[in-house]
Amino acid sequence: MKAGEDQLVQRIAKALAFKSGARLALGIGDDAALVAPTAGYATVLTCDWFLEGSHFLRDKHPPDSIGWKCLARAVSDVAAMGGEPTHFLLSLAVPGTHTGLWLDRFLRGLARAARRFGCQLAGGDTTRSDKIVINVAVVGEVRAGRAVLRSGAKPGDLIYVTGRLGEAELGLRSFRRGRNASHRNSPPVKKHLYPEPRLAIGQWLAAERIATSMMDLSDGLSSDLPRLCAASRVGARIVPSKLPKVKVPGEKKLKDLDLTELALNGGDDYELLFTVRPSQARRVPRSFGAIPLSCIGEITRERRILLVRPGGREGTLSARGWDPFRHRK
Amino acid sequence: MKAGEDQLVQRIAKALAFKSGARLALGIGDDAALVAPTAGYATVLTCDWFLEGSHFLRDKHPPDSIGWKCLARAVSDVAAMGGEPTHFLLSLAVPGTHTGLWLDRFLRGLARAARRFGCQLAGGDTTRSDKIVINVAVVGEVRAGRAVLRSGAKPGDLIYVTGRLGEAELGLRSFRRGRNASHRNSPPVKKHLYPEPRLAIGQWLAAERIATSMMDLSDGLSSDLPRLCAASRVGARIVPSKLPKVKVPGEKKLKDLDLTELALNGGDDYELLFTVRPSQARRVPRSFGAIPLSCIGEITRERRILLVRPGGREGTLSARGWDPFRHRK
Repeated sequence: MKAGEDQLVQRIAKALAFKSGARLALGIGDDAALVAPTAGYATVLTCDWFLEGSHFLRDKHPPDSIGWKCLARAVSDVAAMGGEPTHFLLSLAVPGTHTGLWLDRFLRGLARAARRFGCQLAGGDTTRSDKIVINVAVVGEVRAGRAVLRSGAKPGDLIYVTGRLGEAELGLRSFRRGRNASHRNSPPVKKHLYPEPRLAIGQWLAAERIATSMMDLSDGLSSDLPRLCAASRVGARIVPSKLPKVKVPGEKKLKDLDLTELALNGGDDYELLFTVRPSQARRVPRSFGAIPLSCIGEITRERRILLVRPGGREGTLSARGWDPFRHRK
Repeated sequence: MKAGEDQLVQRIAKALAFKSGARLALGIGDDAALVAPTAGYATVLTCDWFLEGSHFLRDKHPPDSIGWKCLARAVSDVAAMGGEPTHFLLSLAVPGTHTGLWLDRFLRGLARAARRFGCQLAGGDTTRSDKIVINVAVVGEVRAGRAVLRSGAKPGDLIYVTGRLGEAELGLRSFRRGRNASHRNSPPVKKHLYPEPRLAIGQWLAAERIATSMMDLSDGLSSDLPRLCAASRVGARIVPSKLPKVKVPGEKKLKDLDLTELALNGGDDYELLFTVRPSQARRVPRSFGAIPLSCIGEITRERRILLVRPGGREGTLSARGWDPFRHRK
């Protein structure tokens, strides 16, 4: 006999159970979850699609990566506010064929991510569907008045990014080519399969009031930077030579690989893009743990996004990142 | 040129904009939304799928009904806790062909529901997909300690339901048969297309501490009552003759219509199922506004669900409501 919805929900609740400091007054099994908010904190709310065919391939991506990444993507939005994720809702629609081993492996990856990010399952909804369709809503909190918005950048602010840009896109390409499991251990493929939201950096930038604006890079710098600039009603000047590019081991395959193009347009990195007043720049270290923090340009009054090429030549940056209504992956 | 994701988000934000008393510190357009919680209140969290093929038919259901119902379903979960919905996140995946007129009509129904339920759009995620896939997460609040859970029913408590059971199922059947638009005005079809979550009744039952347990009826009494009983570790005895059945005008089509079966197994009603200590029963009126409140049985110590037939004969109730992993609608 096939598992009914109630049995599925019980399996999910069991796989995701862990003790956390989070204030979950009531979790899975009732009509809704109850969470006790912390006095002096604002509630952070976000959600993200993770769809077969658009965001992952059912037969190609390891189920535990799908579980990890569906939560990591949404948690990254909380990181981008300087917040701390506390709970999430899992909405899962799967074919009847995917309620066994596939689901167990998916839940294992999801549980690992939930523990890593300190984010507890509070509820959700499960149903059947021909395709695997996932939606994750994350709830978090941030000290009132300390959230870092997209709209706070001012002309003259310096523009920073965390990590190396284009690494996940390189990982995706390598993953697509890969014929055995060994390539999964390369850092780019790992970043494609198991991205790490920059929670600690985001929280530090917010708590120390270092960042004037912030967002996460999910669609690629060329698509996301214009969004930050639009929200702040400013422009930007980016120096491509300063972009933190992927380190490619050896010289192999470098010919057909434009690392600058990759850094500008590669999506799925879940790095943070943030701005800092020049007077505060000395407070930004060159790295945070093992993660480099790179100054890549500055905010301008003129509302255009310019690339400063070697020799000072300037060109306009076009959005070439990920847009589901313009591309098919 | 096709609308990109950013333009879509702007259209959604515009269609859903309305002034409310809700404390939305930051809405659409940033990485996440910020909400200021009310001191002394718990946060209520819930989400619901609304999928083409499972929950509605793309070419048959009016887009504004899809917009209304996707929010009403999730808001009903908040009503079932005795809570007040304040904000929601809309996750919408649609084919490229559905970003024009269909979307406008969908958003119109959604906006009407949002105003009616006092529930403000705080954010979401949009992407493209072959099928229309909707997920709505609702955030609400309830005074700390006043939420009504599924787990509070005690042996001897009386069992109540709001409204008339099976009405939405009857409406679905009528809607499927209907060849013109006029049948849409019949109360059952209206309930199928535009269900009304019982917010005021739920809040009143919670504030007055009348209900010992509560849930909403989304899959049908025969599927949902066992869930409430399992959470409370009790059983129930239901008197079918007391079920508030649908009023069918005239005698037409009554032959092939078993109103008791409809009341037991019909889904999508979004009525409230709640229990009351016998000493408090005098506080439950026969109706709340125009909505009948009916006592349909009592909670028992023995963990079975029994139906008391005329003459006192008892039979076991089997779950014949909606389960996506067992049925296809």
